[in-house]
Amino acid sequence: MGVFTKQSELSVGKLTEGEIIHRFVTALADACPPFPAGPGGDCAIFPADQARPFRVATIDSVVFGRHFDLSCSGEKAGAKLIQRNLSDLAAAGATPGDALLSILMGPDVDARWLEDFAHGAGRAAARAGLKLVGGDVCRTAPGTFSATLAVQGFAYRVLTRRTAQVGDVLFVTGQLGGSIYGHHLNFQARLAEGEWLGAQGGVTACTDLSDGLAKDLPGLLGPKLDGLVDLRKLPVAEAATKLARQDGKPALEHALQDGEDYELLFTVRADQADFLAATFTKTFPNTPLTAIGTLAKGSGRLCDAADQQPVKAQGFSHFG
Amino acid sequence: MGVFTKQSELSVGKLTEGEIIHRFVTALADACPPFPAGPGGDCAIFPADQARPFRVATIDSVVFGRHFDLSCSGEKAGAKLIQRNLSDLAAAGATPGDALLSILMGPDVDARWLEDFAHGAGRAAARAGLKLVGGDVCRTAPGTFSATLAVQGFAYRVLTRRTAQVGDVLFVTGQLGGSIYGHHLNFQARLAEGEWLGAQGGVTACTDLSDGLAKDLPGLLGPKLDGLVDLRKLPVAEAATKLARQDGKPALEHALQDGEDYELLFTVRADQADFLAATFTKTFPNTPLTAIGTLAKGSGRLCDAADQQPVKAQGFSHFG
Repeated sequence: MGVFTKQSELSVGKLTEGEIIHRFVTALADACPPFPAGPGGDCAIFPADQARPFRVATIDSVVFGRHFDLSCSGEKAGAKLIQRNLSDLAAAGATPGDALLSILMGPDVDARWLEDFAHGAGRAAARAGLKLVGGDVCRTAPGTFSATLAVQGFAYRVLTRRTAQVGDVLFVTGQLGGSIYGHHLNFQARLAEGEWLGAQGGVTACTDLSDGLAKDLPGLLGPKLDGLVDLRKLPVAEAATKLARQDGKPALEHALQDGEDYELLFTVRADQADFLAATFTKTFPNTPLTAIGTLAKGSGRLCDAADQQPVKAQGFSHFG
Repeated sequence: MGVFTKQSELSVGKLTEGEIIHRFVTALADACPPFPAGPGGDCAIFPADQARPFRVATIDSVVFGRHFDLSCSGEKAGAKLIQRNLSDLAAAGATPGDALLSILMGPDVDARWLEDFAHGAGRAAARAGLKLVGGDVCRTAPGTFSATLAVQGFAYRVLTRRTAQVGDVLFVTGQLGGSIYGHHLNFQARLAEGEWLGAQGGVTACTDLSDGLAKDLPGLLGPKLDGLVDLRKLPVAEAATKLARQDGKPALEHALQDGEDYELLFTVRADQADFLAATFTKTFPNTPLTAIGTLAKGSGRLCDAADQQPVKAQGFSHFG
């Protein structure tokens, strides 16, 4: 069952907006607190939280044709929307708080697919302790579906980009590349790892990998540091190797550029790197962790540690 | 200059995502705080606010073809996105806090129109004290544009729906109907009025009119009250009368059903209604205020005060 239906009696076009919202909220189940904290009013309402010193916020979408296709179940698409946003919270070392959901869709969206979407989103949110407190539904052209989630989280200490120092060691969780073979729909955001990293004083900066290491590393570094990466150490995913056999490109290129890894990329003060790596692995025995390089003075480039030269620049990634 | 361009060198398809975001954030100007509070990280960051006891949150979109058309300037579309959301904050009696913006658009969107959109959004946000702290841009099919805003606000006391009592007096600000003649692109959310109403103990419930009085009143009442409305007293906008002359429908029907009024609909304890109305008018001499009816035991219906019968039911508003 794909996102669109030709049987108009099964489409959301047969439902009122009120019916759509009622079904959706019901399917969200435990992820959705009751009125007035949750849906039903002009705004969702929260009491002030005085216990946690920082609030963080992020927004991200899933778009049909871009982040999932006709073969994707509603359940997986809904879970992906949640996990994409949770991955940003993980990068900040934050605990999930509350979220608002906006759905823009054509009248031919399959009403059962949409309910599956809500089930998938609701389950992923509930598992992470994220509350879906409000939302909005709006009609767009037939054949279109997008969902946008705005998320709030809380933290004692917020991990940021652009706060690393010369000499810091660069780490990455998991394995990179080839996410198109399934990882991009099945990943779980590294929330627990992110919260744990936020509590370690030696961690100096953190981000999540959504566009691929080659594009996300400069964002982590900022304009005054280069990352000297030992390319032989990069944890290349099996899927990247498989994809390389298909298209003839090097597996390394896939690991650097594919995107949708949703792993954490972070830096640690050199004198604490070994200890942190050992403790991390004891705490998260199922999460691969790899030290892939160090930081040096520079200009935000990904360099090969072997010759300290920038890794061949990407072509412009035009929006079109 | 409309939202889409056939001159591909002027389209956003020629820009990288980074260039689009840089231009957009620059055009947002004062509405956008610097990193790390604002754009540039995985999450926007806020210190805990211990001064204001309630946080509220809402989300709303503008969609090309639905909320604006080819004749609409970017400036007006951007301002509308902000005002739609601020109207929900106004209904809650809340002060604007921070917001996240998501833009989904085709590669043929005119890059100058998008910059105008950012100018319009930035100006409207800055005027209201709303900070745009983060966002996301994603590509969709040619000919499409939508923008979703998730907003946080703060309040000492939150105004809600479904909290009115039997006997309360029903008030509405402004004039209703015919918003298609321009009001839907030019309105300013009743923020100051909403904040003021939140501070008046006699106000028992409040909402904003986005779908028209006939649809929004039941939402305000909840399932156990009817609204007995003196239809002769309804403040019918001149634009509704003009539209009525065009299409032959009664102007009253337009005032009840057109939607996009973005006025405040609220209830006041009967013994305080006259005093509140007088004080309101002294405080906001340029904001029309009309007492349009009272509440009685019932089932969430809009009734004619003359015969206490439900006003003729609307046909189903199917999502399709």
